[in-house]
Amino acid sequence: MAVQTVESANASTPAAGSVDLGPAAALSCRECGHRVPLGPVFACEECFGPLEIAYDFAGLDAGELRRRIESGPASIWRYAPLLPVPADVADKPNLNPGWTPLVRADRLAAELGVTGGLFVKDDSGNPTHSFKDRVVAQALEAARAFGFTTLSCSSTGNLAGAVGAAAARAGLRSCVFIPHDLEQGKVVMAAVYGGDLVGIEGTYDDVNRFCSELIGDPAGEDWGFVNVNLRPYYAEGSKTLAYEICEQLGWRVPDQIVVPIASGSQLTKIDKGLRELISLGLVEDRPYKIFGAQAEGCSPVAAAFKAGHDVVRPQKPDTIAKSLAIGNPADGPYVLDIARRTGGAVEDVTDEQIVDAIRLLARTEGVFAETAGGVTVGVTRKLVESGALDPALTTVVLNTGDGLKTLDAVAGTGLTATIRPSLESFRAAGLG
Amino acid sequence: MAVQTVESANASTPAAGSVDLGPAAALSCRECGHRVPLGPVFACEECFGPLEIAYDFAGLDAGELRRRIESGPASIWRYAPLLPVPADVADKPNLNPGWTPLVRADRLAAELGVTGGLFVKDDSGNPTHSFKDRVVAQALEAARAFGFTTLSCSSTGNLAGAVGAAAARAGLRSCVFIPHDLEQGKVVMAAVYGGDLVGIEGTYDDVNRFCSELIGDPAGEDWGFVNVNLRPYYAEGSKTLAYEICEQLGWRVPDQIVVPIASGSQLTKIDKGLRELISLGLVEDRPYKIFGAQAEGCSPVAAAFKAGHDVVRPQKPDTIAKSLAIGNPADGPYVLDIARRTGGAVEDVTDEQIVDAIRLLARTEGVFAETAGGVTVGVTRKLVESGALDPALTTVVLNTGDGLKTLDAVAGTGLTATIRPSLESFRAAGLG
Repeated sequence: MAVQTVESANASTPAAGSVDLGPAAALSCRECGHRVPLGPVFACEECFGPLEIAYDFAGLDAGELRRRIESGPASIWRYAPLLPVPADVADKPNLNPGWTPLVRADRLAAELGVTGGLFVKDDSGNPTHSFKDRVVAQALEAARAFGFTTLSCSSTGNLAGAVGAAAARAGLRSCVFIPHDLEQGKVVMAAVYGGDLVGIEGTYDDVNRFCSELIGDPAGEDWGFVNVNLRPYYAEGSKTLAYEICEQLGWRVPDQIVVPIASGSQLTKIDKGLRELISLGLVEDRPYKIFGAQAEGCSPVAAAFKAGHDVVRPQKPDTIAKSLAIGNPADGPYVLDIARRTGGAVEDVTDEQIVDAIRLLARTEGVFAETAGGVTVGVTRKLVESGALDPALTTVVLNTGDGLKTLDAVAGTGLTATIRPSLESFRAAGLG
Repeated sequence: MAVQTVESANASTPAAGSVDLGPAAALSCRECGHRVPLGPVFACEECFGPLEIAYDFAGLDAGELRRRIESGPASIWRYAPLLPVPADVADKPNLNPGWTPLVRADRLAAELGVTGGLFVKDDSGNPTHSFKDRVVAQALEAARAFGFTTLSCSSTGNLAGAVGAAAARAGLRSCVFIPHDLEQGKVVMAAVYGGDLVGIEGTYDDVNRFCSELIGDPAGEDWGFVNVNLRPYYAEGSKTLAYEICEQLGWRVPDQIVVPIASGSQLTKIDKGLRELISLGLVEDRPYKIFGAQAEGCSPVAAAFKAGHDVVRPQKPDTIAKSLAIGNPADGPYVLDIARRTGGAVEDVTDEQIVDAIRLLARTEGVFAETAGGVTVGVTRKLVESGALDPALTTVVLNTGDGLKTLDAVAGTGLTATIRPSLESFRAAGLG
């Protein structure tokens, strides 16, 4: 990222200074550790590294915190003491996502040969049916704290709906930017909440570049772009997946977790969440392995992992797993580091294997996943077969979205038989 | 219903007798009170009236019950002591639906002129994104109790997906019957779980008649049809909507509830649930009004209500609210009775008003409802305008399904503008 873009983007700070975002104390550079006050900035002014939230968790007693969490709301706000949000966040109008089912998947486990306990963390039950509601909910609180009146983002689908819905509930304006030629279903889902939905003549990369330009312009002055100038806050939402998984397992860290990789942010924040729970004494400090899952048609991180590289070489995406189709993932190097440090791996599957895995998960557990869920289940199968994943250990697989959003992937699915309304016809079809 | 159909249908009883379905003690005829043992039967052998569950709630202490519920799982199974299910139901593989958000809808209230508190009970977060998961979950337990190995139903969409998913999770076979010419999206959603999906050359009524025939045939001997021979159990699932609403309001009955009407079963069971909570002492005994909502294109109950009739004259449905399109609703007379007894009403809205209401709910609260949700919100607006609904009282409106399933209803929704990726183009479009 160019110096000018960082500076102009960081300049947009209507109310930076003393804000109440709970335990969030400052922003800290992931690369050089340089600290700056909380504000709508995302890149370090010293080294251009990514900024992330630094917390003040001093004074939190593990036993008391656990009781407080367990008696909290059935949403991510049960973890408000660990998130960059004010203590009264649950009383404000927002979508209250999270606390989604951790499905014990015994029938899937039998098919995959997993004996140590297999669970699917199913995020399709979130308000707009993807994990994006978790991250947008954090960005919304930051937007309120900084006095932004418009919520915005660049998106290829799931995020657009999540931002539109969250802004509608909160009574903020929304203006969402998408490539102009998206599928009609995604356009309707993003537009129905009544905000501005702007099609950009260009690719998703063009949309992203335009948003960075807009942040530095007076027109974007009081705009909170959830995945740009509010990114440090936004990204923290993924920690809640780690919190919920551990609490739902009885305050225990699973041995193995399989996470999809788009930008890689989700995987790095799940690791951060697990480390926080351990350091706070909420769970036992025991080893865990994190596995990353990509589609073969967009597998820059898997390719780097397999080649033993530290650097991720960008790819041009070509896969049905469009919500994971980021060819140049910002957090790729961090993902490689985490997979290697924890003893995990990064693997990829073909589009055909993705579709097979969607059907397998639906058939065995009644969970209809979007293509990203097909990627994680397909990769889990492949990792068991290769021996990289130990079938005797407790394993959690993420499904981050809903099959209703990617119906085309299984469009070949249809009627078993067509019959006349008679028992004769029923028997003739071999169904009796 | 003909005598022969009732008898042959009731004959299919593989394991009737001593079954453990928790507090369910017997089946009782809604018309004549005749009692029979629990079994897969649905029509009274004396008068052909509908059978429903008779409970033994003796020994339940209100304070203890409330504590037990509040410390229970975040699903309908927190109410297991009040449902026809075994006590260990939550440990069995099922979809664990329910405990969906009760959304405080202040922005919608402002638009409708409701001042006494307006809430949307949003059932789109259920596992297959409609309230049908609640009723199928009860039928599944009955199917297990009676030893059925195949779960079946007649459906036009939502129910087919709910049955397919529930059977998959439980490891039962499913065989679902639908009209052969349904929308492709609904077919995919019903087929993806891997059960048999049979298209019937005919209307939904033909599908229903065929299912009744199949129950009396040896081919359907060990089949549990959730909405036919398991209907008394199935229907009880709707009580959980009443339980959750009251608990989420702090164990208080709302003054007014607006419920969609298809067969009318849901509305009658919500009334039953409220009366149970009152008689058990879980909530204060205070008056409440229940309002029914229909689409003008299928408004047999609203028409009877307005005309002052006790009998519902069947209609041929023609509306975009397909999940409510039952022209001859079985529980229509009971709905009329409840609306009149509680001081409520039954109202209907046009397809145009349904679409407007879907957009209104999305724009004000970030909830994307299916057409049935447009019906209840649209009817609420109409009832406030007519004075039938008191805007100064606490009001709960049901959204029973998800907008992603009826995208066509708002297909006109789209991009606000299409621009080139430049600030000049952005300003020229008047967005700055």
